[in-house]
Amino acid sequence: MQVVVLRETVEGERRVAIVPETVAALTAVGCSIAVETGAGRHAFVRDEDLAARGASVETDRTHLLQSADAVLSVQPLPVGDIAYLAAGSTVVSFLQPWAHRDAVRALAARSVTSFSLDLVPRISRAQSMDALSSQALVAGYRAVLLAAAAAPRMFPLFMTAAGTVAPAKVLVLGAGVAGLQAIATSRRLGAVVTAYDVRAAAADEVRSLGAMFLDLGLDSQEGAGGYARVQSEEFLARQREVIGEHVARSDVVITAAAVPGRPAPLLVSADMVQAMRPGGVVVDLGAEAGGAERGGNCELTRLGEVVDVDGVTILGPRNPASAHPLHASALYARNAANLLTLLIRDGQLDPDWDDEVVAGSCVTKDGEVLKT
Amino acid sequence: MQVVVLRETVEGERRVAIVPETVAALTAVGCSIAVETGAGRHAFVRDEDLAARGASVETDRTHLLQSADAVLSVQPLPVGDIAYLAAGSTVVSFLQPWAHRDAVRALAARSVTSFSLDLVPRISRAQSMDALSSQALVAGYRAVLLAAAAAPRMFPLFMTAAGTVAPAKVLVLGAGVAGLQAIATSRRLGAVVTAYDVRAAAADEVRSLGAMFLDLGLDSQEGAGGYARVQSEEFLARQREVIGEHVARSDVVITAAAVPGRPAPLLVSADMVQAMRPGGVVVDLGAEAGGAERGGNCELTRLGEVVDVDGVTILGPRNPASAHPLHASALYARNAANLLTLLIRDGQLDPDWDDEVVAGSCVTKDGEVLKT
Repeated sequence: MQVVVLRETVEGERRVAIVPETVAALTAVGCSIAVETGAGRHAFVRDEDLAARGASVETDRTHLLQSADAVLSVQPLPVGDIAYLAAGSTVVSFLQPWAHRDAVRALAARSVTSFSLDLVPRISRAQSMDALSSQALVAGYRAVLLAAAAAPRMFPLFMTAAGTVAPAKVLVLGAGVAGLQAIATSRRLGAVVTAYDVRAAAADEVRSLGAMFLDLGLDSQEGAGGYARVQSEEFLARQREVIGEHVARSDVVITAAAVPGRPAPLLVSADMVQAMRPGGVVVDLGAEAGGAERGGNCELTRLGEVVDVDGVTILGPRNPASAHPLHASALYARNAANLLTLLIRDGQLDPDWDDEVVAGSCVTKDGEVLKT
Repeated sequence: MQVVVLRETVEGERRVAIVPETVAALTAVGCSIAVETGAGRHAFVRDEDLAARGASVETDRTHLLQSADAVLSVQPLPVGDIAYLAAGSTVVSFLQPWAHRDAVRALAARSVTSFSLDLVPRISRAQSMDALSSQALVAGYRAVLLAAAAAPRMFPLFMTAAGTVAPAKVLVLGAGVAGLQAIATSRRLGAVVTAYDVRAAAADEVRSLGAMFLDLGLDSQEGAGGYARVQSEEFLARQREVIGEHVARSDVVITAAAVPGRPAPLLVSADMVQAMRPGGVVVDLGAEAGGAERGGNCELTRLGEVVDVDGVTILGPRNPASAHPLHASALYARNAANLLTLLIRDGQLDPDWDDEVVAGSCVTKDGEVLKT
């Protein structure tokens, strides 16, 4: 069974779907791994290190596609590549089908069975395949480095011979995996952190990281599967009021609020930004989730740009997990290898369609689109 | 007594020599503070906040210079500005006279009495005026943010459902104020840190921050005043050998080794960089100290540029303290106000020339250049 990993072609994508460790793991379950030359270059994963664990390294991309029983990738394959895949072959990607309808249609048309790592159900058995979480961890860490680098103040408290420097006040909106990592990293750097999430259940996690939790004094708003859900207008008005007060007194605001498959909820308005002190910084992780444009949690965000609003800097980083590609790839490659392993029985692709992880993450099968 | 603060004119200089707090402190000892419009803009120090503490804000730079009894600045004044100063007036700057001979000559020619904050003796009474230390603290913090942002790996240990991510291995060369802050900040972010300094006395400070100290097994090399001193060729050979071994196994190398008034000691050779794994990062704070080009602690550093050597990134940041101008200015302004206050008796400039802090930091006086 031939498993193929290609160079990623999306601009700015530095990650790769395989690392030496997962070459070994997949070989152990009966796979032969074939990697396109230089596939891991931008992640500092070297061809020779992959080869040392048993991967073959080849330059002919078309032949690799034609020979693949399964393809692992980070971004969805380009439609041009999908045309070379054999009918009945399998693709495992971070597919986000709602954002990549052309690729999904092409996969179905070619009768490719495709699985999307961002659709893996959030049940404990599937945590090792949860790429949404693993990449959000990297993104949350990245957001803090960007905020700290852009801020005219330092994050930690300093007590020096020339007097005291107060710690930065950081507000984190959204306490999913990315938000929690942003809290943890800001705390590591010594900032005073306040956090908010629509799910009241997040309060304990936030507090366990040494941050204060913003309580609106309203009912919890947790949706299905542990994700945030879409909110009522009344709830949103109250949320805007409380968040607005806290944005104005913060030095740094990091937003990481996402509702899967939907535009990012708008949490920070233009008015709120204008009420911040000059030198304030907003890092908006809602601007893009896993390569798909989502509109942003802040009204003034422009994806991939640095916006200055009267001395307040707004960053909407593209593909933040890709900024630390070595570790992001290590985590992603393990997620992908774990899902692929679940699909294999006796050295062959033979998914158990009654398994909720298999069924939940499958996007195309037998020429049909199952998820949009 | 009129104390003047101007907009800094050196490219990339975002700091300012006064903050609202020091307006109040200097007013209390009898000074009138006059600030050029927008002097603090790039540091996010607002004219209205300075005015609220009693500063006058004026647009006529020439008139400000002509009316000054004393001028506070970060960078040395441009020679063109010095021409407008009254004979007998006083300037307090981060002057580094060896790097700014034209400015020093102009100050002497104009019979301006000048004091350099980087020459304040490192005695405990003068710690509150030690701008070399206060700015090195900011630079050391900055170096870690730059390294962490450029590294393809993350700094902390992560134990996730997709397996463990090992912490980054950081090597800090030079354990003065900047190096110690780089150690502390790297440790905050969860890295495993090893540090080296020619002064064996630094070992305890390094270890107290949770880092390992590299011991060459040779005699201590501490120079006068607690600074590092110039080393013998034999010592340097042994140092190169041990450092080379550790550079090769590090993910990140931060160099912060300076000998005051001399070129930066070369600690990391081209060979050492080539022995690093791809994805390695070097941040060289020795490339520039306080605005003066120093050559760098790493052979391949190019000041202000990002150099890629076979996948190893080398950064030689310009003016790193200026990257966090709000806090760097707060500390610097206090240093400057403290030194100026020392020069004032009964509301007038009346330095005690027998005071070792006054004498040690004076660069020009009565038309003579006292320090080069």
